[in-house]
Amino acid sequence: MIDQTCLPHAFEVVELRTRADAERAIRDMVVRGAPLIGVTGAYGLALAMREDPSDSGVRGAAAALEITRPTAVNLRWALGRIAGLLMRIQPAYRADIAFGEADVLADEDAVTCETIGRHGEQLFHDALARSGRDRVDVLTHCNAGWLAAVDWGTALAPIYKAHRAGLPVHVWVDETRPRNQGASLTAWELTQEGVPHTVIVDNAGGHLMQHGRVDFVLVGSDRTTRTGDVCNKIGTYLKALAAADNGVPFYAALPLSTIDWGISDGVGEIPIEQRGEDEVTHMRGLTADGRIETVRLTPVGSPAANWAFDVTPARLITGGIITERGIAGASDLAALFPEHARARRR
Amino acid sequence: MIDQTCLPHAFEVVELRTRADAERAIRDMVVRGAPLIGVTGAYGLALAMREDPSDSGVRGAAAALEITRPTAVNLRWALGRIAGLLMRIQPAYRADIAFGEADVLADEDAVTCETIGRHGEQLFHDALARSGRDRVDVLTHCNAGWLAAVDWGTALAPIYKAHRAGLPVHVWVDETRPRNQGASLTAWELTQEGVPHTVIVDNAGGHLMQHGRVDFVLVGSDRTTRTGDVCNKIGTYLKALAAADNGVPFYAALPLSTIDWGISDGVGEIPIEQRGEDEVTHMRGLTADGRIETVRLTPVGSPAANWAFDVTPARLITGGIITERGIAGASDLAALFPEHARARRR
Repeated sequence: MIDQTCLPHAFEVVELRTRADAERAIRDMVVRGAPLIGVTGAYGLALAMREDPSDSGVRGAAAALEITRPTAVNLRWALGRIAGLLMRIQPAYRADIAFGEADVLADEDAVTCETIGRHGEQLFHDALARSGRDRVDVLTHCNAGWLAAVDWGTALAPIYKAHRAGLPVHVWVDETRPRNQGASLTAWELTQEGVPHTVIVDNAGGHLMQHGRVDFVLVGSDRTTRTGDVCNKIGTYLKALAAADNGVPFYAALPLSTIDWGISDGVGEIPIEQRGEDEVTHMRGLTADGRIETVRLTPVGSPAANWAFDVTPARLITGGIITERGIAGASDLAALFPEHARARRR
Repeated sequence: MIDQTCLPHAFEVVELRTRADAERAIRDMVVRGAPLIGVTGAYGLALAMREDPSDSGVRGAAAALEITRPTAVNLRWALGRIAGLLMRIQPAYRADIAFGEADVLADEDAVTCETIGRHGEQLFHDALARSGRDRVDVLTHCNAGWLAAVDWGTALAPIYKAHRAGLPVHVWVDETRPRNQGASLTAWELTQEGVPHTVIVDNAGGHLMQHGRVDFVLVGSDRTTRTGDVCNKIGTYLKALAAADNGVPFYAALPLSTIDWGISDGVGEIPIEQRGEDEVTHMRGLTADGRIETVRLTPVGSPAANWAFDVTPARLITGGIITERGIAGASDLAALFPEHARARRR
């Protein structure tokens, strides 16, 4: 895996060799991004099968991996899919089957994300036609690019498709405090892909929208209810409010694996992860002489709180939700996935 | 002056000895906060009178000091008041008179802010009665405390008054990127005053309001139109949107000197300062071994943009505006200051 805690200052690859490695990588955000933690969970379960392929080994490993991060439902989805399969076969074959299924899941994720990108590319054509300007300005929050998935990403996939199609794309990159996934990961990804972009602080998006500088907003999701409430990185809700207040279409891009068909009230029902306050009080960066250094920002004695996600109600997803089956209004997700909506699995 | 660029990690006092010192201190944000840069401008003009007390000296110094920062109108107000007086007296007396008038302006500012605090204290009593809870949670953005003024501050003055009156106050302190005036200055001030508080990233306020964790929002202002549009630190608008969406009252606290009676469309007419991109791409903090160090956050090659303020339309100031003459609805400012509203000075 790419160690995402080192970016953008260093590119390092780490190998996960045990279930404990996978748990730690997810919890410490060496890997992050809803699709990617699903896939990492799947491989973690496969690694666990090398250690203990018994029934209790399957259940124990799935449970331990699932609690590493509580909000993104992709982890539960991937673990449930692999564990369900493993329980139907003999322990001796479980490790091999699990690795094979994790590979399938990873390959599917790449295809799914590319399909999301293909559907989303249309938004850029539409925006150009609508604005009559020579550039499409899209604002994104956090990182929902290929770092957050196996390839392509969710929110960034349409941006890459549009850019590769030669459309004049410019991305406003929200810094995304406290972990700066925008300023570090999205900015780095866009640099690698040659996509024009500008980093802004999370506070700036409202001002930009008031002045007509944003054509639409495009974000990912960590869990989306059957009713279209979108849980995503903390601060997404504030951008959706600004978009609604200024008539700027707001889109979320997400695969089926992000939808939690069992719940319908995002604000009330989605568990919001709270992380360590050091993510708020301290920051890591590169010194002038090339060392990665952590510095304290706050006074000693000032406590901090750190909720990792918030929920944007469906009414504010004014553009729609981009999935591998096309684009739907936020409240029409069930029509895109009728077979899953009916099953109402939890 | 307290060098605010060193807080919260070091407390240093710098002396301003020349007009150029004053200009630099305001531009580099050694001093910041709308009331304080007004007072610093006044003393800067007095220092200039020691260097050149001629008519062109007055005009040149006032113009040079005024352009150090474009958004806060207090600077223009203070310079206009002192310069207007100086032009009516002989050059030989101008330095003495200017220092005397700057002293008056500074003393007035302290009294004004304390009066704002007295008026605003009532909000805390009201919130306790309304919620029936044993704590008032107020959210603030940026720093509008005694660091930003001569004493008391604007938005923090009611908090200090309520805290000293023994009310159970807790402050959610927005970090306030990019310069972190919340996490560094407000958190430090509240620590000095013993006021319970928690630092949060700018992204978190919407989530807190969705979950009933904020009784009201209280911010300062750098310029307010006659119609009650409030220009304040970038990101204020996003908090006002979240407050409106969740029925949380939103207040701005500001003195007369912050009101620009000459304009009525905040979004269209208030010039928004753009500052250097290094404020976004780099951050300063304290290392584990006690050194103040600057680190880069973004990849080399990713540009950044840095607007310092945004405008919250009067319709979102749902609580009201707290001034030295009491609290008014945002659109009723003129009723509090009829003599100024009539004059419509620009």
